[in-house]
Amino acid sequence: MARKASLSGFPEWLPAERVVEQHVLDTLRRVFELHGFANIETRAVETRAQLLRKGEIDKEVYGLSRLAADPDEEKNDPNALALHFDLTVPFARYVVENAGHLAFPFRRYQMQKVWRGERPQDGRFREFTQADIDVVGDGSLPFSYDVELALTIADALSALPIGDFRLRVNNRKLAEGFYRGLGLEDPDAVLRAIDKLEKIGAEKVAEILTTEVGATAAQAQAALDLAGICTSDTSFVEQVRALGVEHELLETGLDELSQVIAAASKRAPGNVVADLSIARGLDYYTGTVYETVLVGHESLGSICSGGRYESLASKGKKTYPGVGLSIGVTRLVSRILAEELVTAARSVPSVVYVTLANDEAWHEAQDVAAALRERGIACEVAASAEKFGKQIKYADRRGIPFVWFTHADGTHEVKDIRSGEQLSADPASWTPPAEDLTNVVS
Amino acid sequence: MARKASLSGFPEWLPAERVVEQHVLDTLRRVFELHGFANIETRAVETRAQLLRKGEIDKEVYGLSRLAADPDEEKNDPNALALHFDLTVPFARYVVENAGHLAFPFRRYQMQKVWRGERPQDGRFREFTQADIDVVGDGSLPFSYDVELALTIADALSALPIGDFRLRVNNRKLAEGFYRGLGLEDPDAVLRAIDKLEKIGAEKVAEILTTEVGATAAQAQAALDLAGICTSDTSFVEQVRALGVEHELLETGLDELSQVIAAASKRAPGNVVADLSIARGLDYYTGTVYETVLVGHESLGSICSGGRYESLASKGKKTYPGVGLSIGVTRLVSRILAEELVTAARSVPSVVYVTLANDEAWHEAQDVAAALRERGIACEVAASAEKFGKQIKYADRRGIPFVWFTHADGTHEVKDIRSGEQLSADPASWTPPAEDLTNVVS
Repeated sequence: MARKASLSGFPEWLPAERVVEQHVLDTLRRVFELHGFANIETRAVETRAQLLRKGEIDKEVYGLSRLAADPDEEKNDPNALALHFDLTVPFARYVVENAGHLAFPFRRYQMQKVWRGERPQDGRFREFTQADIDVVGDGSLPFSYDVELALTIADALSALPIGDFRLRVNNRKLAEGFYRGLGLEDPDAVLRAIDKLEKIGAEKVAEILTTEVGATAAQAQAALDLAGICTSDTSFVEQVRALGVEHELLETGLDELSQVIAAASKRAPGNVVADLSIARGLDYYTGTVYETVLVGHESLGSICSGGRYESLASKGKKTYPGVGLSIGVTRLVSRILAEELVTAARSVPSVVYVTLANDEAWHEAQDVAAALRERGIACEVAASAEKFGKQIKYADRRGIPFVWFTHADGTHEVKDIRSGEQLSADPASWTPPAEDLTNVVS
Repeated sequence: MARKASLSGFPEWLPAERVVEQHVLDTLRRVFELHGFANIETRAVETRAQLLRKGEIDKEVYGLSRLAADPDEEKNDPNALALHFDLTVPFARYVVENAGHLAFPFRRYQMQKVWRGERPQDGRFREFTQADIDVVGDGSLPFSYDVELALTIADALSALPIGDFRLRVNNRKLAEGFYRGLGLEDPDAVLRAIDKLEKIGAEKVAEILTTEVGATAAQAQAALDLAGICTSDTSFVEQVRALGVEHELLETGLDELSQVIAAASKRAPGNVVADLSIARGLDYYTGTVYETVLVGHESLGSICSGGRYESLASKGKKTYPGVGLSIGVTRLVSRILAEELVTAARSVPSVVYVTLANDEAWHEAQDVAAALRERGIACEVAASAEKFGKQIKYADRRGIPFVWFTHADGTHEVKDIRSGEQLSADPASWTPPAEDLTNVVS
């Protein structure tokens, strides 16, 4: 991570860094599949019309055009292609297109690159990998999935080498009900102001609420009091009630958020909190909303966000409600690498380097390698019979821990080049210590 | 695979199809890593100047431009971006940029999507996944890697559910030496004509050789005789010698190809042949060239091609010779799916569906699920306590083989819904048969 990307915003990892990224992706895949999520991939491109439908032009979409094509041909064509900027819009299209082939509620995870032409900065890239999980229903989706998704993502993040995290959960119904109960009739405008709380502070939010949203000083203060509530158990309910606001939607929201926090405080204690300041920018969330910070790395922003949407996708009268979260894998990996939270033991998968006593020994060495690979031990055979010292140095330079020797009498020895210990070994049965088989060091 | 891609040339798989694609990618990754290849990924974009450097404009490159940018801004900018059309050009750039951080010979595999704006047709896509392996040296690279790469790729393809394949190997030095020995002074032109043999037949190739390349009828016939040689052992050497042509480069080529075929006939018998008709279109190959056909699916074209290049990448006086192969994963997977060579047992990873006797049992069911996941058994918990019949039907519709019941007295039973067998079980120890844990059926 000392190196600078040769193209700003488009990070590339060295082999040992990629080992860490693969470890993250493998871990997420394992946890998601253990929770019954099926994998899909969608194409990298959508039509521009599809991508711009929700007015997300601020995402700085990258348009595509064939260099060989007439430059004017695609300029104003709504079916011209562009790179997706997230995995939610393509997933919504995929669900509608393939609804007849999917079993609902459809649980899927998706780990792919996305592109945004934004100005690159710390933690923000132009090409990056997201890992999304969503459950989508056909017409309806039980609320218990909002709870399950929080638990699944807590399980996934706990399995990653990222230290402590906080999944901060709120509920749009709770907030909207509270604002309406207060007498504020434009809850979206209130939410947009509250969303700026961390950035601009309470005083300026209050100013926006009174001057732009039409709140009284007391209403503004109540909205800020609500946003100030943050508990790791369901005690937030009493704190909200103490503010003395009543509304039916508020009750629904309190009940829903309680269910998430009650389950999480039991199954993922300490990792999930009710944080009533969470607003989430996107319009399409209708209930639960999630954001996640890495403890000690709050400046990184949210590493995993999402929520419940009543109709992300629709076709005619059919709607597909869902609940999902998206992990910013590249943002996480760049931080793991920068802080060396985990590292690769070596830049190559090989555990054993099979040396050559002479060039004629190449076939015999391949037999040794085949026997080791048969038992899942990654290895390389020397390309030519250089002096043993040179062959050992080659292995050492790559961090390959073991060097294999086959003697003229047909016996074998294997040397741990870290300790210098050299023992006789049988290619059909010798096995390295388990910690050398994996290539990730915490 | 019954469905048509909603955007021509951009295939998307259903969850059960993606299981097959993941199986292919996982298998390739396992074999490549067992052979000591490290993984890297490069960014999806290169500068247009980089991509068009080798005059590959016929690949129909997709250019990128930010929709928010001034449309004229990027039109003539050589630093404007475009999507890569293969993994070789980006890899060459990566090696030059990171040479100081890599241990040479550098062995890497890379499995990523690439894009080409070609007209889509059977086996040809606009977005598709390639899996490449290459070994690259700093200044020089021993020939034995040409042998090793053939064996590695034969190992990888043998591990895939694709049936019989033929890795067809030739050598540019052999061909060039032969043509020069014949007195033909433009060996590239001869190769280009021979490359058309399968498409247009011997008669028309002879016509091109005599009318366009300046060969006599006898020279054309000799070139065709050479291309007609195909052996699964080193007997091709005698057959070439019988044609009575002599040239130093021919000798080098015969020796190199013999080494590949001798090793392969021993270690991958039947899968690798010396096929002297193989020409490979690309200019940069300088020795060994590889192509691969699926036996019985020859119309699919080559599913895995590559060769030796003396200087794919260079920087100043430094050159990086290499040898590598590229597998057309999407082409292979589309055929595997169409022919149902393997299928997924189910469209979800879940092996067990944990039912609910009543809504209060949700937490207890999560305990069961957690115990199963702890031992690597993927499972889902029912979202609500519908009638058992409905819950079982839900599992059945997804192909989940086992349904879990927790009774009021705290005992558990698990039912195999295929056989109807229902047995008492302990969440801490019950394990499904191994064949149900994996989701791929041959």
